[in-house]
Amino acid sequence: MCNQQNLVLANARLVSMENGENGYTVTQPLTITLQDGKIHSVSNSVPSADAQNTNVFDCKNKLVTPGFIDSHTHLVFAGNRAQEFEQRIKGVSYEQIAKQGGGIVSTVKATRDASEDQLVENTLPILDGLLRTGVTSVEIKSGYGLTLDDELKMLRAAKALENHRRVKVSTTLLAAHTTPPEYKNDPDSYIDLVCKEIIPTVAELSLADAVDVFCESIGFSIEQTERVFETAKQFGLNVKGHVEQLSNLGGAELVAKYHGLSADHIEYLSHQGVQALAKSNSVATLLPGAFYFLKETQLPPIEQLRSQNVPMALATDFNPGTSPFADLTMMMNMGCTLFGLTPEEALRGVTCHAAKALGLGSSRGQIKQGYEADLAIWNIDHPAELSYQIGVPRLTARIVDGELCHD
Amino acid sequence: MCNQQNLVLANARLVSMENGENGYTVTQPLTITLQDGKIHSVSNSVPSADAQNTNVFDCKNKLVTPGFIDSHTHLVFAGNRAQEFEQRIKGVSYEQIAKQGGGIVSTVKATRDASEDQLVENTLPILDGLLRTGVTSVEIKSGYGLTLDDELKMLRAAKALENHRRVKVSTTLLAAHTTPPEYKNDPDSYIDLVCKEIIPTVAELSLADAVDVFCESIGFSIEQTERVFETAKQFGLNVKGHVEQLSNLGGAELVAKYHGLSADHIEYLSHQGVQALAKSNSVATLLPGAFYFLKETQLPPIEQLRSQNVPMALATDFNPGTSPFADLTMMMNMGCTLFGLTPEEALRGVTCHAAKALGLGSSRGQIKQGYEADLAIWNIDHPAELSYQIGVPRLTARIVDGELCHD
Ligand SMILES: [Zn+2]
Ligand SMILES: [Zn+2]
Repeated sequence: MCNQQNLVLANARLVSMENGENGYTVTQPLTITLQDGKIHSVSNSVPSADAQNTNVFDCKNKLVTPGFIDSHTHLVFAGNRAQEFEQRIKGVSYEQIAKQGGGIVSTVKATRDASEDQLVENTLPILDGLLRTGVTSVEIKSGYGLTLDDELKMLRAAKALENHRRVKVSTTLLAAHTTPPEYKNDPDSYIDLVCKEIIPTVAELSLADAVDVFCESIGFSIEQTERVFETAKQFGLNVKGHVEQLSNLGGAELVAKYHGLSADHIEYLSHQGVQALAKSNSVATLLPGAFYFLKETQLPPIEQLRSQNVPMALATDFNPGTSPFADLTMMMNMGCTLFGLTPEEALRGVTCHAAKALGLGSSRGQIKQGYEADLAIWNIDHPAELSYQIGVPRLTARIVDGELCHD
Repeated sequence: MCNQQNLVLANARLVSMENGENGYTVTQPLTITLQDGKIHSVSNSVPSADAQNTNVFDCKNKLVTPGFIDSHTHLVFAGNRAQEFEQRIKGVSYEQIAKQGGGIVSTVKATRDASEDQLVENTLPILDGLLRTGVTSVEIKSGYGLTLDDELKMLRAAKALENHRRVKVSTTLLAAHTTPPEYKNDPDSYIDLVCKEIIPTVAELSLADAVDVFCESIGFSIEQTERVFETAKQFGLNVKGHVEQLSNLGGAELVAKYHGLSADHIEYLSHQGVQALAKSNSVATLLPGAFYFLKETQLPPIEQLRSQNVPMALATDFNPGTSPFADLTMMMNMGCTLFGLTPEEALRGVTCHAAKALGLGSSRGQIKQGYEADLAIWNIDHPAELSYQIGVPRLTARIVDGELCHD
């Protein structure tokens, strides 16, 4: 499936996604040498296959971009909510569905009942969808376990995906996703559990790269969110937040205060929120799939983010309740069509800016000497095509850690 | 690629899409025998592989639906309008783009310049996208040639796709798509050409199954449309129309008057239009991709169509200007999410009702004895999943004319 030798890509027209205008300009055909999982050089020289353990792959003037990074997903879960989708369209209310045991509670129940292996098996087809759209790195959140053991199980399942597919997984602890049924009338005690048991254990086991909170009127309050962020920081973990999706609580400012990696959703982000993110150098992560699926009308403040130079990431937010879409190019199209991003911004949103949202901006998401050799080779002429057509198989191959994968 | 023997499907849980409630109910595991490209029987009996030339395929309790039918596409064209998409998002006006030679005129120019073989080659990746979402039949319109020779070339290219992929192509002459540049100031003379030369020749060569017109303020008038419909009928061809997309001209009533196969787009369809379609037994074809891409807000009158029992088809409308989406399940999701269709209506829209829109309702689009053996096998539990998740590869195999295709 993957080729283990040092790889040289010949006749590669690069879209490097480095900072500045040139990052989005298609180069003349170049030679890229990959070594030990890193980009070793980019040059004009004609490649030679003489060297030992070197394999030349002719890109035939196809476009080469950084491998795509889906920086916000809830990919690991059990259960199936297609019939709930059907009921909702037929007019059954959220309340009625919740009474029937549906909604996120049904996902939590099914996820708790599933083994780690079952979670991996359920996730692989969804992951395969993402890989088909050029993804080489994916962030995966916990948040359907909501007990220490079940959150650990989700994070282990997420990590285990790397043993089944050529992909790099970043894990995020989202124990503060929703109050579990058994704490229904006492969310503060659940936050106690998160801060006193779950975060310390996850930190000790190195199972998560960051900690996330769903900060919303129907999620956790600013005070509860701050307790989680503070604890995360004490244990050396980065933070990020689901904030200002359905209302403005000031979650983005809180993310900024803790130098968070990213503030995600942010349809209701205020001007102060934009300025706070700009100052803290946090990423604004846009999730148009949920916006579309929920038929929202409040648009994120793209023009303000743009003028304040806040880097914008774009992700699938894949989850069974509000964004069942395993196609990152579709999110690029929605980012452009629904949010008014340019195709360049959309592409930065799934490469260099997505890497930054994972705290990996200096090692992934650009084609640059010393960066990780994660690439996607596309049978297209211009990078705008990636945000334009959906469903047309244009991916020739992915490269992960310098290894060619014909999936 | 395809298996040539008579095929028996074992352990197939059917969603037959026959009329009535049972058509959407998942059956117990059954045995389907296929013979000479037709569905020979559906039964409880245990399959035997003893018979000569019979091959048993174990569906392992997966869901089997009719093969999907994309009943409205502009799949054949040349040129690339991704950069025009980029310009538009950056604020360049339609007028400026047209002045630069962009818009539909650029597609017409590139299509005229392309050979039949080049058109086939350009179309194959797009077609592959559709096949990946379970498509076994696709309708393809001309309309970017706009001369006799170039329209013939497009129709031949569409037909030729059947030699490259296992798929059934229905062709539609859409010479009356737009007035070509050389007739800019005299559209009636172009309609003369369509009626006096193009339709007669296409009919004589049997290159089209139907004739279509873009009836719109920016397309052709009701009078011009009627001339085309009348001529088509004289030459024994069925008609259909792009109608009431951007305004209400009464095109649907005209389609109904000529017992047209379908009225397509129909966001501005009036109550009279709905009643006319109901009376003429024409299909209402919904195209949510263009609605989404153009950020339209006027919704087609779904509730009226539903209450008048007008069959609703759902199609990609794949085209380079307003719907570059080669994913029929995405259109099903958009039909549900944007237009409020139920998942059952969405599935009927790409099976039984799509077949009817092609005039093939009594031979395709249902799993029924004597119907053509075009099927899709899905690794899912419930048919609502087809409208719900996008991008997750759930298609196990397609069957076209009784032959198994692992694409
Ligand atoms: Zn999320
Ligand atoms: Zn059309």
